[in-house]
Amino acid sequence: MITLTSDFGTPYPAAMKGVILRRCDARLVDIAHDLPRQDVRAAAFWLRFVLPEFPPAVHLAVVDPGVGTDRPALAVRAGAHVLVGPDNGALMPVARRLAGAGERPDEAGRTGHGGEDDVAVFTLDYDDPDSATFHGRDVFAPAAATVHEAVAERSPPDRRAWSADDVGAVESLPRVSPADDYVDLTFPNPTVGETSVKGEVLVVDDFGNVVTNVPGRVIEGRRSVRVNGERVPVGPSFAAVDPGERIATVGSHGYVECDVNRGRGDEAFGLGPDDEVRLRFD
Amino acid sequence: MITLTSDFGTPYPAAMKGVILRRCDARLVDIAHDLPRQDVRAAAFWLRFVLPEFPPAVHLAVVDPGVGTDRPALAVRAGAHVLVGPDNGALMPVARRLAGAGERPDEAGRTGHGGEDDVAVFTLDYDDPDSATFHGRDVFAPAAATVHEAVAERSPPDRRAWSADDVGAVESLPRVSPADDYVDLTFPNPTVGETSVKGEVLVVDDFGNVVTNVPGRVIEGRRSVRVNGERVPVGPSFAAVDPGERIATVGSHGYVECDVNRGRGDEAFGLGPDDEVRLRFD
Amino acid sequence: MITLTSDFGTPYPAAMKGVILRRCDARLVDIAHDLPRQDVRAAAFWLRFVLPEFPPAVHLAVVDPGVGTDRPALAVRAGAHVLVGPDNGALMPVARRLAGAGERPDEAGRTGHGGEDDVAVFTLDYDDPDSATFHGRDVFAPAAATVHEAVAERSPPDRRAWSADDVGAVESLPRVSPADDYVDLTFPNPTVGETSVKGEVLVVDDFGNVVTNVPGRVIEGRRSVRVNGERVPVGPSFAAVDPGERIATVGSHGYVECDVNRGRGDEAFGLGPDDEVRLRFD
Repeated sequence: MITLTSDFGTPYPAAMKGVILRRCDARLVDIAHDLPRQDVRAAAFWLRFVLPEFPPAVHLAVVDPGVGTDRPALAVRAGAHVLVGPDNGALMPVARRLAGAGERPDEAGRTGHGGEDDVAVFTLDYDDPDSATFHGRDVFAPAAATVHEAVAERSPPDRRAWSADDVGAVESLPRVSPADDYVDLTFPNPTVGETSVKGEVLVVDDFGNVVTNVPGRVIEGRRSVRVNGERVPVGPSFAAVDPGERIATVGSHGYVECDVNRGRGDEAFGLGPDDEVRLRFD
Repeated sequence: MITLTSDFGTPYPAAMKGVILRRCDARLVDIAHDLPRQDVRAAAFWLRFVLPEFPPAVHLAVVDPGVGTDRPALAVRAGAHVLVGPDNGALMPVARRLAGAGERPDEAGRTGHGGEDDVAVFTLDYDDPDSATFHGRDVFAPAAATVHEAVAERSPPDRRAWSADDVGAVESLPRVSPADDYVDLTFPNPTVGETSVKGEVLVVDDFGNVVTNVPGRVIEGRRSVRVNGERVPVGPSFAAVDPGERIATVGSHGYVECDVNRGRGDEAFGLGPDDEVRLRFD
Repeated sequence: MITLTSDFGTPYPAAMKGVILRRCDARLVDIAHDLPRQDVRAAAFWLRFVLPEFPPAVHLAVVDPGVGTDRPALAVRAGAHVLVGPDNGALMPVARRLAGAGERPDEAGRTGHGGEDDVAVFTLDYDDPDSATFHGRDVFAPAAATVHEAVAERSPPDRRAWSADDVGAVESLPRVSPADDYVDLTFPNPTVGETSVKGEVLVVDDFGNVVTNVPGRVIEGRRSVRVNGERVPVGPSFAAVDPGERIATVGSHGYVECDVNRGRGDEAFGLGPDDEVRLRFD
């Protein structure tokens, strides 16, 4: 199985699929191709949210502001998964989670710190590609197919899921070498106090829901919270308030979200990615 | 085969796919994930339009304004198909059609009344999910996979399509029980007179085509019709009028549509979902 | 394998998939369903860009301003591929490329002239379809499934890719006959002079990148070029200029593109499909 993630819109992702299917017979699953353009942190967030739901697979992920420069191409082994994409940090938070780090933010809202032993980062050497602007097609798709075939060859056909041992095959591929250095990315941690929390917006989803970096437990059990000064009810889901009303809730990522029932939280709260969010309990 | 329908945008549907693929090897087919947000009637319309084209399958459909409340989860057996989703009525019109009701509106424009004997509605009991806002991932996707595996196990591998008997497997699943009560949904019927029809708009599609609940036969053979007072030509397809011109035609659903050749009917006619449409022949 | 391309938005393409899957077990791959509405030349461009990346397959492509008229349905054999769609020219440029014509524009920017021997065009006879407005579902999807099954039956199961001989099966299908006449489409060629080029915009992609018909070699090695009078730097990729800055580059199609790093070229250059583009070197 190969999953595909990008900010390419259409029809560019289909060209990557053709390249892969010329080389192997893997099942292909789209994660998203309309991620915010060239937003590496948003890509990192969504990859970390979605990929841990999958069985062991090769995950091709190309959100690549540096396309055409000489930034390296990476293969990252994480548990029984392999991630393939440009070296810009987007692959690292999900790699830590796939390798066994906690699946939800810890008490302090920190994630991705611990259990990272099973992550190994490799550089993929590649020839000058046909194009300087579409490495998804010319560099990363062929690499993902090559990795998939190497792992599939080692995995017994009667076994449904790959093991960490199977995906170790990536290490023995020609033109693959351990990365001396690579770009890392971690999400900012909130400052959690007794009566207030200072956090920030990580992403805004398609619904306009505002996802913060504040761990859900800080609002659980409360009836309301001040968000940047304004009191908002706390509830288990949108449906706890009337249509058009604002609510603070714990999203499916485990973080505090600022939402509107049947409306857009980003507009109602005036919040977007990177904006500061102060929660106060009183 | 499992089909997937939602109003989740991206990348949430991919999380559902991961959950399913961790549990089974079914072919996955997307119906749509950009349905009008939380619009149960539109979901019911499009499910009824698309799913009858498919061979017997499990159909996961989650447009769920009540997410996080205690509204039940349903599995609906309909002929040799099984539908899985929240109990809000969206599954019922297509269930009746899949069970053998007429595939096109009858003379009076009524659908879904007749041949419903082969529909059986079940409640799915589920544990408290991880999230209160993403039951698609935490409740319905696992349920769809479980149903798929139970049916696939009973179906002979050399048979391409499931039978109604195979999908009866859903009844024997643990935590599945016949539903005492459930939400139903029927589409409004038009009032068809000698010289006029009073109907309403069911949905507007991506093209801006305005789909009414008026059966196509009332305009077939006519050269023109008054739509809310204004005379519009009747034709077999958009191409029967010049680009930018309005036309009344019979859409692929069998209903009267108000369209514009290479333009948007909703804007030209000033019509949207639920609006009244009066057709007059004179 | 059957690929699917259309301008249908959602959920109409899913109806085509159901129709196909009732008839065969082929792998389905979406190319795009949000192509510019009823724009045959844009469809021709994107098909020619994407499909050559694929292994031999049946390619269903329906961008069909003439739906509901009596324009013929075609099957086009091109090398080891078969294209299925309406007779409006959209299939011909990619057919020539799949049959072995040069994969990149030649020195003069001309493509699709040469190596066309292995293209054969057939008319598909069809019954009056259920609808006059959705031939994708009622005419072309069943035809694609029929062609796929005929070719798959002839292809040895242990062979991964079809041969040109396998896909010859299309000729022996009932209701298939050699086309006496059909609509062709070629892209306009630029006028390439010593110090200037007169070309035009072929398409604008999702990023707002403006793709011209000018072959990339005319700007390769240059440091800047005048685009409709204004000097713009030339570079290998967006990243060669600062965010928000304009650049002329060679896109992954081999043509000159007018782009903006992390912005929209169409807005910055004021260019859209069919617009004239004059490049001057001085």
